Amino acid sequence: MDIKNESITTQEQDFAQWYTDVCKKAELMDYSSVKGFIIYRPYGYAIWEQIQSYLDRKFKGVGVENVYMPLVIPASLFQKEKDHISGFAPETLVATKGGQATLDDELIIRPTSEVLFCEHYKNVIESYRDLPKRYNQWCSVVRWEKTTRPFLRGSEFLWQEGHTMYETEEEARKDALRMLEIYDEMGRELLAVPFVKGIKTDKEKFAGAKETYSIEALMPDGKALQSGTTHYFGDGFARAFGISFQTKDQKLATPHQTSWGVSTRLLGSIIMVHGDDNGLVLPPRVAPVQVVIVPIMQKNPDVMKKANEYKAALEKAGVRVKLDDSDKSPGWKFAEHEMKGIPLRVEIGPRDVGNGVAVLAKRNDGQKITVNDADVVKEAVRLLDVIHEEMYKKAFKYLLEHTTEAHSIEELGQILDRGGYAKVMWCGDRACEDKIKELYQATARCLPFDQMPFEHKCLVCGKEAKKVVFFARAY
Amino acid sequence: MDIKNESITTQEQDFAQWYTDVCKKAELMDYSSVKGFIIYRPYGYAIWEQIQSYLDRKFKGVGVENVYMPLVIPASLFQKEKDHISGFAPETLVATKGGQATLDDELIIRPTSEVLFCEHYKNVIESYRDLPKRYNQWCSVVRWEKTTRPFLRGSEFLWQEGHTMYETEEEARKDALRMLEIYDEMGRELLAVPFVKGIKTDKEKFAGAKETYSIEALMPDGKALQSGTTHYFGDGFARAFGISFQTKDQKLATPHQTSWGVSTRLLGSIIMVHGDDNGLVLPPRVAPVQVVIVPIMQKNPDVMKKANEYKAALEKAGVRVKLDDSDKSPGWKFAEHEMKGIPLRVEIGPRDVGNGVAVLAKRNDGQKITVNDADVVKEAVRLLDVIHEEMYKKAFKYLLEHTTEAHSIEELGQILDRGGYAKVMWCGDRACEDKIKELYQATARCLPFDQMPFEHKCLVCGKEAKKVVFFARAY
Repeated sequence: MDIKNESITTQEQDFAQWYTDVCKKAELMDYSSVKGFIIYRPYGYAIWEQIQSYLDRKFKGVGVENVYMPLVIPASLFQKEKDHISGFAPETLVATKGGQATLDDELIIRPTSEVLFCEHYKNVIESYRDLPKRYNQWCSVVRWEKTTRPFLRGSEFLWQEGHTMYETEEEARKDALRMLEIYDEMGRELLAVPFVKGIKTDKEKFAGAKETYSIEALMPDGKALQSGTTHYFGDGFARAFGISFQTKDQKLATPHQTSWGVSTRLLGSIIMVHGDDNGLVLPPRVAPVQVVIVPIMQKNPDVMKKANEYKAALEKAGVRVKLDDSDKSPGWKFAEHEMKGIPLRVEIGPRDVGNGVAVLAKRNDGQKITVNDADVVKEAVRLLDVIHEEMYKKAFKYLLEHTTEAHSIEELGQILDRGGYAKVMWCGDRACEDKIKELYQATARCLPFDQMPFEHKCLVCGKEAKKVVFFARAY
Repeated sequence: MDIKNESITTQEQDFAQWYTDVCKKAELMDYSSVKGFIIYRPYGYAIWEQIQSYLDRKFKGVGVENVYMPLVIPASLFQKEKDHISGFAPETLVATKGGQATLDDELIIRPTSEVLFCEHYKNVIESYRDLPKRYNQWCSVVRWEKTTRPFLRGSEFLWQEGHTMYETEEEARKDALRMLEIYDEMGRELLAVPFVKGIKTDKEKFAGAKETYSIEALMPDGKALQSGTTHYFGDGFARAFGISFQTKDQKLATPHQTSWGVSTRLLGSIIMVHGDDNGLVLPPRVAPVQVVIVPIMQKNPDVMKKANEYKAALEKAGVRVKLDDSDKSPGWKFAEHEMKGIPLRVEIGPRDVGNGVAVLAKRNDGQKITVNDADVVKEAVRLLDVIHEEMYKKAFKYLLEHTTEAHSIEELGQILDRGGYAKVMWCGDRACEDKIKELYQATARCLPFDQMPFEHKCLVCGKEAKKVVFFARAY
């Protein structure tokens, strides 16, 4: 019986259904009875814990402190910054009853916490000595979405939101770029996902921000997935909330603010960028289980002894390892571990023990390598790094091959239909940006830091081009 | 200027005000604009992170897996278990609008997540092979409270909630006791807080539970503080939600359930059990900063060199250490670090450097010890353990001295007025339990595991006594 093909739609048949199948069959999530509020099952949550652990260490390394802000925002407070409220109001969940009585001031379940941080900063910032403030919180937020998909768009999702205040504009601008760099490193080092880094157009930036930066990943169906953002706010919120501080030379000044966040959307990115028709393919450094040992003929005591030896030795080497000694057949186990995307499998049977070898099977490309008993641990540790590099390179190659200069409006349409980024020379006018969206349902993902202009004229209006923009259809 | 006395109410003057002063001045929390929803500031949140890290390791050690369940519960789902809904309905926060439209089914912001776990367990439990399930989540919950106090009683608080399902009653009962034991160990090993462990009376148990166990701490004002609970549910919820599984011998059976949780209330326990008129006194193992180094005359390069050496050496020894080289005066720093309860201070001045010594000052009793330069790290590490033991012993002594047998109704009143636990012989009738509450506003905290009966008759009605109960006034 071929368990694998029985249980999952292929990418070619229906990419969207393949994605949902993997989310469910790899036991990453389950649906709850409220639309858009998903259950993060142990395996899915464990991946998020790996991301948390990586980022929390990086954040603390640059002086960020964790806090926890209230879940609710009074409607009256939420309205203090006008752009912000108009951006978020349409998608809020609102509590109107508490302790069986109607609330005087309705409470918005936080969709993001800028206003809560500002309210607090007003109380704790008095002098330049109190700056900078670099706070972060790990929590869930709620945005009432019409169309929802596991990890990609939810009415509730898990994230971290960092909120900072600095003495000067220069420091705050640096912060927004530094945090973007940390996110980008996370892609390279942890997720094996290459991102395009850039700045958003005014049309696409965050409600209330002066500048929004983003990391954008490219999915195998040719759509872009915004995977994290950092924002420079200037002093707009600070002024709206009356936050000020005394400078070293006794003057009153307004601090400059940033915020930055990534969410469980990163899981969607991992699933799509690396997954295949056998299921999930997890990058080794984010995998809750990095190596699974499957004994063949596990009634054989020599096999089990060896399997246990490998487990102990791999654990000692710092590898997250699981020995699958359940009563399922080896074939069933192989299919299950492939579905769950475990990066490396160690197979050990009676003949292998006799020959003093074991077989290592790589999830990312199916390659099997026979290794001498004494080298199993060393080789497994080495292969985990090799797998990471191979996965990153493959994704990077796909990104490069699907990033194409558009030299005419017609060519732009062809590029977008094929899938991937279209590089577009742009005059900077909102009208030209709108026109592309209207024609092709594609949005400006970002103005990449790496500009490399290739024409002089705007693709749409023919006026002088000022910037290279990456356009794509997006999640 | 005496900074300390200027800024804080003494315990004798007003214990409740002292508590609030410490919460604020030690920068553990701040108020938000919504009553009962507090801000966990970096220092307070860092203590919670230490507790999380300790418990998460212990939980995973007994096979618990972390998950994340939705923030909201449909009102229709919440009503499935009758005792449960009647216990929680009066104090819920309810969302009635989403995306600017009225919701068909109102959404309750989770006050606890039994029903969500049950709904999910129904989907993922089919066979005995799927059991046990031991899930936990770290999150916040909302209970709309009339009277709120930082950490002790809030409309929102942080906690962990574990929810398990087992094949047999016996396993589930064991689980409830094992998790209580983990909480009790946390008191001894991490918080230096001794708990009384026991089972709740029917009147005091959790809404929907068959049995509730608790750990109860005793505060210096003589009031008890329930600090954690575990519940055995039997199969009541499982039946209400239609959860069943196929046994090894192919029969259909209903699983048995437990849940267990501790919350940021533990911070209240730490603050009150250990604090003094100079502020917070943190047990070393939960302290975000265990040792603070204060250089005296920090313009002296020899002093700063030595201070930096100590910092590096203490870090290397695994100690959480801070070097305070801010431009405040040593006296100001001493008072600030005392307010924040940092367990050990290292003072180093020019004369000390000349003499090849440093001074170590213990926060818990103010003792100062002059130590040879070469022994500073070894001695600091040793003293952190000594401080933990001393703090635990002091709290345990207080607990023993404030646990008194009540031989008459009048004596019971005197004991409760003096503060602490009154040991009461009880017939088991609800009427007698109610009578004590009516007379003295004291509640049955628990029937301690360690029973030691001392009379034959019920203190209230004079019928045959069946149990020893600890009564106290409580937070």
